[in-house]
Amino acid sequence: MHLYIAYKNYSSWSLRPWLAMKVAGIPFEETLLPFAHGDSLKQFSAQHVLPAQVPVLITDDLVIWDSLAILEYLAEGYPECQLWPESRALRALARSAAAEMHSGFSALRSQFPMNCRTEKAVEPSVAVAQDLQRLAQIWARFEQADKPAGPFLAGSFSNVDAMFAPVMWRVRNYGLKVSSAFDRWAQAMYDLPAMQEWLIAARAETWQMPAYER
Amino acid sequence: MHLYIAYKNYSSWSLRPWLAMKVAGIPFEETLLPFAHGDSLKQFSAQHVLPAQVPVLITDDLVIWDSLAILEYLAEGYPECQLWPESRALRALARSAAAEMHSGFSALRSQFPMNCRTEKAVEPSVAVAQDLQRLAQIWARFEQADKPAGPFLAGSFSNVDAMFAPVMWRVRNYGLKVSSAFDRWAQAMYDLPAMQEWLIAARAETWQMPAYER
Repeated sequence: MHLYIAYKNYSSWSLRPWLAMKVAGIPFEETLLPFAHGDSLKQFSAQHVLPAQVPVLITDDLVIWDSLAILEYLAEGYPECQLWPESRALRALARSAAAEMHSGFSALRSQFPMNCRTEKAVEPSVAVAQDLQRLAQIWARFEQADKPAGPFLAGSFSNVDAMFAPVMWRVRNYGLKVSSAFDRWAQAMYDLPAMQEWLIAARAETWQMPAYER
Repeated sequence: MHLYIAYKNYSSWSLRPWLAMKVAGIPFEETLLPFAHGDSLKQFSAQHVLPAQVPVLITDDLVIWDSLAILEYLAEGYPECQLWPESRALRALARSAAAEMHSGFSALRSQFPMNCRTEKAVEPSVAVAQDLQRLAQIWARFEQADKPAGPFLAGSFSNVDAMFAPVMWRVRNYGLKVSSAFDRWAQAMYDLPAMQEWLIAARAETWQMPAYER
């Protein structure tokens, strides 16, 4: 199984399935296609008749080209990893939040692109403040849910944590405020060995993307 | 089970789970919350601590607030309806395309909002033409896939058809061109009794939204 991703420092969509596979212990190879440097992504996308976007997961017989579709595929193919919560109610909640992240939070995403190796306080716009307030509501909803013990949104790590992983970097690295429940989650995410592995790789990258600096 | 939606004429997100449930024969009640007329959606969203968006599916014990999360919930809860294709490969393809629709096609969506009862030819912008070309690629991919007989993307009707249902209205009602494979699919979608039921209801609505006219 082969995961195609972009810059570890900047590509928020790449982080999501990468982190899920690492935390779940699913073996895979990876190739980095730096979309703004060289034309490897362009060539790859043309070859597979896809938009010039990552992540893409390629298996023996399948090409899966969206982060959420990849996460669903992994949850189905590796049921022992419980990438969705076992409880039907918690799974529906996790999928609702994951899907909201998949198509929403546009202000937060555009004003604060993921940049793992930066660190500075930046004042959020009114629109971003609303996104942060919405995050706090989601975190409160998970706190109130009937769920197993554990520091992640549904107790144990699951796909919904993977979907929100880049938000941890945005909030942490730009000094944003969400809620204390969010902070506890963010610390657990930051402490994941897989997240530290990603951070080390992000810091070692030499590509610079000024558009991703705030 | 209760589905909360908005204007049948205009709300593309509402159409997706509504159509899936109707075609699958899953019984539900529905309530229309016209977001730009009155404050019923605002009250509903505040009550459930949600963004002021539909669709929302409420069951005895669950609140599911995103179209894709609702479709996943239905597929799991009603396996006999086969809302995702039975074949693992076809399911991964269907989920990739559904997820691409969920977060993509922004030019098509913004230049051509769904409006079931309009009919006029409008020239697409360059960005929309690219979206239409991408649709043709997706339809070609499904044509080449190993799948059961039937006029829908994965042979029988499934969640991926539901996700692209509003695209049928956009292409049909504004005289856009995608491909002949798309046209065959679009006709099958248009002919669905559930789609005709939606259209009759859309035509009967008296709310006018000038922002949705092109």
